[in-house]
Amino acid sequence: MLLHTAAWPEIEAYLKTSTGIIIPIGSTEQHGPNGLIGTDAICPEVIAREAGEDAGILVGPTFNVGVAQHHLGFPGSMTLRPTTMIAALNDWIDSLARHGFEKIYFLNGHGGNIATIGAAFAESYSNWSFDGEACPYELMQRNWWDLPGVMDVCRSLFPVGEGSHATASEVSVTYYAYPEHVKNVKMSPKIAPNGRFTDADDYRKTFPDGRIGSDPAQATPEKGATIVQAARKAVIQDVTAFFSR
Amino acid sequence: MLLHTAAWPEIEAYLKTSTGIIIPIGSTEQHGPNGLIGTDAICPEVIAREAGEDAGILVGPTFNVGVAQHHLGFPGSMTLRPTTMIAALNDWIDSLARHGFEKIYFLNGHGGNIATIGAAFAESYSNWSFDGEACPYELMQRNWWDLPGVMDVCRSLFPVGEGSHATASEVSVTYYAYPEHVKNVKMSPKIAPNGRFTDADDYRKTFPDGRIGSDPAQATPEKGATIVQAARKAVIQDVTAFFSR
Amino acid sequence: MLLHTAAWPEIEAYLKTSTGIIIPIGSTEQHGPNGLIGTDAICPEVIAREAGEDAGILVGPTFNVGVAQHHLGFPGSMTLRPTTMIAALNDWIDSLARHGFEKIYFLNGHGGNIATIGAAFAESYSNWSFDGEACPYELMQRNWWDLPGVMDVCRSLFPVGEGSHATASEVSVTYYAYPEHVKNVKMSPKIAPNGRFTDADDYRKTFPDGRIGSDPAQATPEKGATIVQAARKAVIQDVTAFFSR
Amino acid sequence: MLLHTAAWPEIEAYLKTSTGIIIPIGSTEQHGPNGLIGTDAICPEVIAREAGEDAGILVGPTFNVGVAQHHLGFPGSMTLRPTTMIAALNDWIDSLARHGFEKIYFLNGHGGNIATIGAAFAESYSNWSFDGEACPYELMQRNWWDLPGVMDVCRSLFPVGEGSHATASEVSVTYYAYPEHVKNVKMSPKIAPNGRFTDADDYRKTFPDGRIGSDPAQATPEKGATIVQAARKAVIQDVTAFFSR
Amino acid sequence: MLLHTAAWPEIEAYLKTSTGIIIPIGSTEQHGPNGLIGTDAICPEVIAREAGEDAGILVGPTFNVGVAQHHLGFPGSMTLRPTTMIAALNDWIDSLARHGFEKIYFLNGHGGNIATIGAAFAESYSNWSFDGEACPYELMQRNWWDLPGVMDVCRSLFPVGEGSHATASEVSVTYYAYPEHVKNVKMSPKIAPNGRFTDADDYRKTFPDGRIGSDPAQATPEKGATIVQAARKAVIQDVTAFFSR
Amino acid sequence: MLLHTAAWPEIEAYLKTSTGIIIPIGSTEQHGPNGLIGTDAICPEVIAREAGEDAGILVGPTFNVGVAQHHLGFPGSMTLRPTTMIAALNDWIDSLARHGFEKIYFLNGHGGNIATIGAAFAESYSNWSFDGEACPYELMQRNWWDLPGVMDVCRSLFPVGEGSHATASEVSVTYYAYPEHVKNVKMSPKIAPNGRFTDADDYRKTFPDGRIGSDPAQATPEKGATIVQAARKAVIQDVTAFFSR
Ligand code: NI
Ligand code: NI
Ligand code: NI
Ligand code: NI
Ligand code: NI
Ligand code: NI
Repeated sequence: MLLHTAAWPEIEAYLKTSTGIIIPIGSTEQHGPNGLIGTDAICPEVIAREAGEDAGILVGPTFNVGVAQHHLGFPGSMTLRPTTMIAALNDWIDSLARHGFEKIYFLNGHGGNIATIGAAFAESYSNWSFDGEACPYELMQRNWWDLPGVMDVCRSLFPVGEGSHATASEVSVTYYAYPEHVKNVKMSPKIAPNGRFTDADDYRKTFPDGRIGSDPAQATPEKGATIVQAARKAVIQDVTAFFSR
Repeated sequence: MLLHTAAWPEIEAYLKTSTGIIIPIGSTEQHGPNGLIGTDAICPEVIAREAGEDAGILVGPTFNVGVAQHHLGFPGSMTLRPTTMIAALNDWIDSLARHGFEKIYFLNGHGGNIATIGAAFAESYSNWSFDGEACPYELMQRNWWDLPGVMDVCRSLFPVGEGSHATASEVSVTYYAYPEHVKNVKMSPKIAPNGRFTDADDYRKTFPDGRIGSDPAQATPEKGATIVQAARKAVIQDVTAFFSR
Repeated sequence: MLLHTAAWPEIEAYLKTSTGIIIPIGSTEQHGPNGLIGTDAICPEVIAREAGEDAGILVGPTFNVGVAQHHLGFPGSMTLRPTTMIAALNDWIDSLARHGFEKIYFLNGHGGNIATIGAAFAESYSNWSFDGEACPYELMQRNWWDLPGVMDVCRSLFPVGEGSHATASEVSVTYYAYPEHVKNVKMSPKIAPNGRFTDADDYRKTFPDGRIGSDPAQATPEKGATIVQAARKAVIQDVTAFFSR
Repeated sequence: MLLHTAAWPEIEAYLKTSTGIIIPIGSTEQHGPNGLIGTDAICPEVIAREAGEDAGILVGPTFNVGVAQHHLGFPGSMTLRPTTMIAALNDWIDSLARHGFEKIYFLNGHGGNIATIGAAFAESYSNWSFDGEACPYELMQRNWWDLPGVMDVCRSLFPVGEGSHATASEVSVTYYAYPEHVKNVKMSPKIAPNGRFTDADDYRKTFPDGRIGSDPAQATPEKGATIVQAARKAVIQDVTAFFSR
Repeated sequence: MLLHTAAWPEIEAYLKTSTGIIIPIGSTEQHGPNGLIGTDAICPEVIAREAGEDAGILVGPTFNVGVAQHHLGFPGSMTLRPTTMIAALNDWIDSLARHGFEKIYFLNGHGGNIATIGAAFAESYSNWSFDGEACPYELMQRNWWDLPGVMDVCRSLFPVGEGSHATASEVSVTYYAYPEHVKNVKMSPKIAPNGRFTDADDYRKTFPDGRIGSDPAQATPEKGATIVQAARKAVIQDVTAFFSR
Repeated sequence: MLLHTAAWPEIEAYLKTSTGIIIPIGSTEQHGPNGLIGTDAICPEVIAREAGEDAGILVGPTFNVGVAQHHLGFPGSMTLRPTTMIAALNDWIDSLARHGFEKIYFLNGHGGNIATIGAAFAESYSNWSFDGEACPYELMQRNWWDLPGVMDVCRSLFPVGEGSHATASEVSVTYYAYPEHVKNVKMSPKIAPNGRFTDADDYRKTFPDGRIGSDPAQATPEKGATIVQAARKAVIQDVTAFFSR
C-alpha cells in the first residue's frame, strides 16, 4: 500500500495491524551520459513499491532530493545541505511517530545520503536521550544494494564495469522502471575512471562525464527486472525482521 | 521533459533553449474519507507533467511534503515545519540557479504551502538584496486552481459541494491520475462543515472526517480529466509568459 | 491600554477580564520621496492605539522591522530575513502565551510581511500539532487596509493615484500622526509606474523613486484622520469578534 | 533626525555628511509595581531622540523586545531567546551596512541585553574575520546609565533606594517621558531585596514584586528630566567621539 | 608539534613546509565499569601526539565531546546534537582553512561520530559546490582502529572479549596513557552482551553496565603501549599519504 | 577528580555527595610571539585540575575553542561563531543536567568568551522560563583572573607590562604547566600597544605581533606557579560557596 494513494481511514486501519513503514530515500543527481537524474530515488521507490504490494507493507512518499553537493557540476543535479536534510528527516519522522508508527525503515538509493541519514537518526534520538524518556520508535536505513543477495546478482550480471556511480545495475533498474527512457549514448572510455572526490569542482574534474568506474552501456530493462526481483524479496525479509524485532 | 528521467547532457542541451523549469509542490495529508493522502502533490504533478510533455517544458521532482501541521490529527498526514521548508526550498532553488535556471515556477497544490513558499522566496532574494547584487533568477508560485479558467470548469462540474479541502475537483484529478484508487466511501454529512482552524487538535474537532465544505463523493476520473485538460492549457500559457518576461 | 506604559499588576488585572492583545506589526522601509520610512509601522500603531484607547483593548509593542529585502536599494530601509522574523514572532507569541493570552491579533501595515507572518503562525501551531496537545491560543493577522470599509474610504479620498506602495492613504495616515513631518516633494511622474519585483536591485530599477502606482503628493493629515477614524472603528469590531469567538 | 519620520532622500543626504546612527535598544518587561513595562526601551529612546534632535544625529527604530527571560514570571514581560536576538541584530546591522553606515551605536537600556549584544557583535565580525576581508563598519554598545556623569546625577537624586532593577532613576525617566502614566502604588518593603537570579521562577520567588534593591516610589518626572538632560549631553559627546574615531 | 603549545610564528613557519594538520576527535561517555569516560578522546589524542612528535606533524586541539546521545543513561556521559557538532566542525574547518591549511585529517576515536563527521564534511563542501568555486582544502576522517594493521594487533592481544564498546584495546590505550587511573573492577558477566541500540534508555536497558561484547578486565598499560606503537606508525603513513596526494 | 579519567560508577558515587562540576573554558588563539596558542584553555585547565585534586571537586573536559574571531589574522587561531558556541554549551549543560548536576561552574580563561557564555546561560534558562517550570540547575562563569586576590599577585609580579592580551601572567601560567615550551623570543616594542579592535583585519593592523599592552618576556614558570597557587585556593573557595548556596 502506498501512503499517497491511500485515504486516512485506510492508514488508521493499517496501524491496527502494523506500525511499520518504508520510506524510499534517494537523490536527484547526474548519473552519467545514459543514466537518469532520478536514478537514486527511482531505484528504492520501485523496489519498495513492489515489495509493499507483494507483502502488504505501507510505503511512504519518496524523499527525492538528498545530499549530492558533489554532483552540482553537472546540469540538473540538486542537493540539500546535510543540516537541511536532517531537519526535513526529523519532521518526517516526527510526523509518522505522531500517528503511532514505531518502525521507520528508510530504503536508501544514494551513497551520499548515508552519513546524513545516520546523523539525522542520532538527532532524533537525542531528543529522547536528553529528556530521559524512552523513544517510542526505531529507525533503520538500508541501501538497496546492501540487501542480502543483491550484489551477488549485480556482479553476476555485470562481472566487468559495474562501477560505483552510475552503475550498470542502478541504470538497469531505472530502465526496467522506465523502459521508454532507455538512452543509447556513446561513452568513452568504456569503463569510467575510479577515484576520490571532495566538492563539485573536484568531482567534475576527476570524472568528466559523471560516471565512476562503471560501464552503464550494459544496462537493460531485463537485467533491471532481475535485480528488482532479488531486491524485492530481500527487502520484504529485511523489513519483516525489523518490524517484528 | 521530466528532470528525473533525463540524463545530464539532455539538461545541458535544454538550458541552451530555455532556462525555465516547473517544480510541482504539494503536501502529504489527509483528504477526507475518499481522498488520497497524496492529493496535493499528485494534482500539480499530473498537470505539470502533461503540460511539460505537450510544450517541451522541463518539470523537476515533486516537493511532496509541505506545511500540513493542521492535518496531523489524521493518520498518515505529514508536515514540515515552515522553517524546514524554507531551508529545503532554498537548497532546491540554489541548486537550480547553480546550473543557470533563471525562471523557477512552483506549481502548488496546497493552500497551506502558500505563505511558506512566499517566505522562502523572500529568504532567497534577501541574500542578493543584502549583498547589493542583482539576483539572476526569478521565482513564481501559482496554485493550480488559480490558473485562468480552471475554477470555472470546477464550478461548472460541481456547482454544489466543491468545498475548500478534499474538494470534489482535487479528488477528481487524483482519480483521473490513479483510477485504480477510486474509493467509494459513505460520508456524512453529505457536505462537510465550513470553518476556521488553528492546530491539528482544533482541526480534527471542527472537521471530524477531514473534509471542509466539500462533497467529494461526486468525484470521478472523467471530471478529473476535464479539469486537468483545462489546467494543462492554462499552465502552459502561464509558464510561457513567465519564462519569456 | 498600552503594554509599554502599563505596570505588571495592571496586566495581571487586565488578564482577568480579557486574554486578547493587539500587536501592531510593520516595517522600516522607504516609502517614496515624501513618505516616512516608518510608515508601515506607524499606520497600524496609530490605529491600534486609538482603538485600544477607545475600547480598552491592550496594545503591545510594535514589531517595527519586517520583511523588506526588496527595499534595500533605498537608504534607510531595514529588513529581517523571513526565518529571523519567524523566530522573533515565535518568541513574542510564546512570551504572551506564557501569561495566558489566548487571542493574539497582529494588525499589519506591510504587504511584504503577510507571507512570513502566516509561516510564523504555522511554525507556532506546529509545536502543538506534533505533540498532539491542543494549542491554548489563537493567532490572527489583519492588514489595516483590509478592515471592512477602509478601502472604500481610501478610494473615495483618492480616486486616482492611490497606488500600491507609498500609497496616498498610508502617507496621509502618517501625516495625521506626525503633522510636523509633512514633506513637500516634487515627484515625477505624477503617478508612479506599476509592476512586479523580486530583489532590491530589481525593485530600484523598476521603481526609481520607490513608489508603486501612487501619487502620494495628495496626502494630507486631514485625509489621514478620516482614514484612521474608519480603521479605528473597524478594528474594534474585528478584534472584538476575534476575542470573543 | 529619526529614521522613522524621514524619507529616503533625507537619509541619502545624511549619509553624505555622516555614516553614524544610534539604535536605542531595550526590553519589554516588568519594572515593579509602579514602573512601566516599556521602561528599558523608553529610556534609551527618549535620550537618543533628544540627543539626535540637539546634535543632528540620526536615530533608528527602537529594538524594543530584548533578553528578559528572567522576567517572564510577571504578566506582560516579553523576551527573545538570545539566539533570536543575535539573528535579528545581525539583520539590522547588515541592513544599515548595506547603505554605507559605518558606525552603529546601540544605546542600551537593559542589563539583560549586554551579553547578547556582545555576542551579536562578535557574530557579525566573524563573517569578515573568516573571509579575511576588512569589516567596513564598527559596532558599539553603551548602557545609558554608564554614560559619563549620569550615575553621579542618579546617586545625588536618590542617595538611598536607587537599586538595580526598577530603579528610581529609570522610572523617573519614563515618568518624564510619559507624565500621564505616573503611578502611585504602595510598595512593601520600601526598599526591595537584593540578590541573584537564574530563570523566571527563581526571579519571582526572590523578588516577589519585581523590584531589585530599589525604592521607585521616589520617582518623579522632574527628576527624570534632570537625568535625561545629563544623559543627553553625555551621549552626544560619546557618539561624536565614536563617529569620528 | 602541538598547536596548543606552539606560538603563532611557529605555525606560520610550519605552514611554509606543510599545510596539513591532524585533529584528534573523540567523545566524553561511559566506557563500562573500568573504562575512562574520556577514552574516545584520549585514544586518538595519544596516538596523534606521539605520531606528531615522531614525524613533525602538527596536531590541533582535541574535539572532546561528540555524538554520544545513546550513553546519556550513564552518569558523566556528554553529547552534542549532530547539528551542533556539524556547526562546530565547520567553524574549526573554516578557521584552519583561513590560515591556508589544505589537508585536515580527523583521527577519530568514537564510532558514534562517524556519520556526523561525514555530514559535516558534506556541509563544508556544499558551500563551494553551490558557489561553483573549487574548495581549497580536503577533509579526511580515519578511525584509529581502522588504521592498517591496528586491528590485527588488537585481535592478537585479545583473541576473546575485544568487543565493540569499552573494548579491551581502547581501555588498554587509556591505561597506557594514564597508568595512575588503571581501575580494578569486577564485571559480570565476564563478556558483555552484544546487540543493537537506539536512544539512551534503550542502550542502558540492553547493556546494563555500559559495555558491548567486551571483557576489558584484560586491559593493561603494556598492551596499550603495543597498540599505540602500531597505530602511531600507521597514522604517520596514512597522514603522509593524505598530505601529499 | 577529572571526568575524563573517571569511570561512570565513580561519577554516580560522586553525585551522591556533590552535584557540582567545574568546566574549564578557554580558546585556541595566538598569544603573541612567545605565548602558547592554547594559553586561554591551559590556564583554567591547570587551575581547575589542581583545585579539583586538592578539594575533591569534579572537573569536566575543557571547552577548548571559544570566540576568537578577532585573532584569525594570526596563523593557528581558531574560533567558534557565538551562535555555535551557544549551541555547544547548551548541549554540554543539558548533558550534565541529565545526570543531576545542579551547579555548573565555568572557569573561563578568555575575555572574548564572556559575552557568549552569558548569552548561552540566558538561552538555557529561557527554556525553563518559557515553560514556567523551575530550572533545576544554576550556571556560573568566573574568569580565573577575577578570582579574589589573583590580580593582586599578578600586579605584584608584573608591576609593568602585565597588559591585557598575551599577558605576562597568563604566559607564566602556561610556562608553569609546560616548562618544556618556554619560548625565548625578542619582541619589539618591549611593551605592546593598547587599543580597541573589531574584526581580525583590524586586530592585526593595530597589534602586529598579537600582544595588547603586555611585555610577556617577563614570564617564567616560577611566577606561573605563584599565580596558580593563588588561583587554586581562590577557586576552591569560590566553587565551594557556589556549590553550597
Ligand atoms: Ni546512484
Ligand atoms: Ni488538497
Ligand atoms: Ni507601506
Ligand atoms: Ni530597567
Ligand atoms: Ni570507545
Ligand atoms: Ni589569553
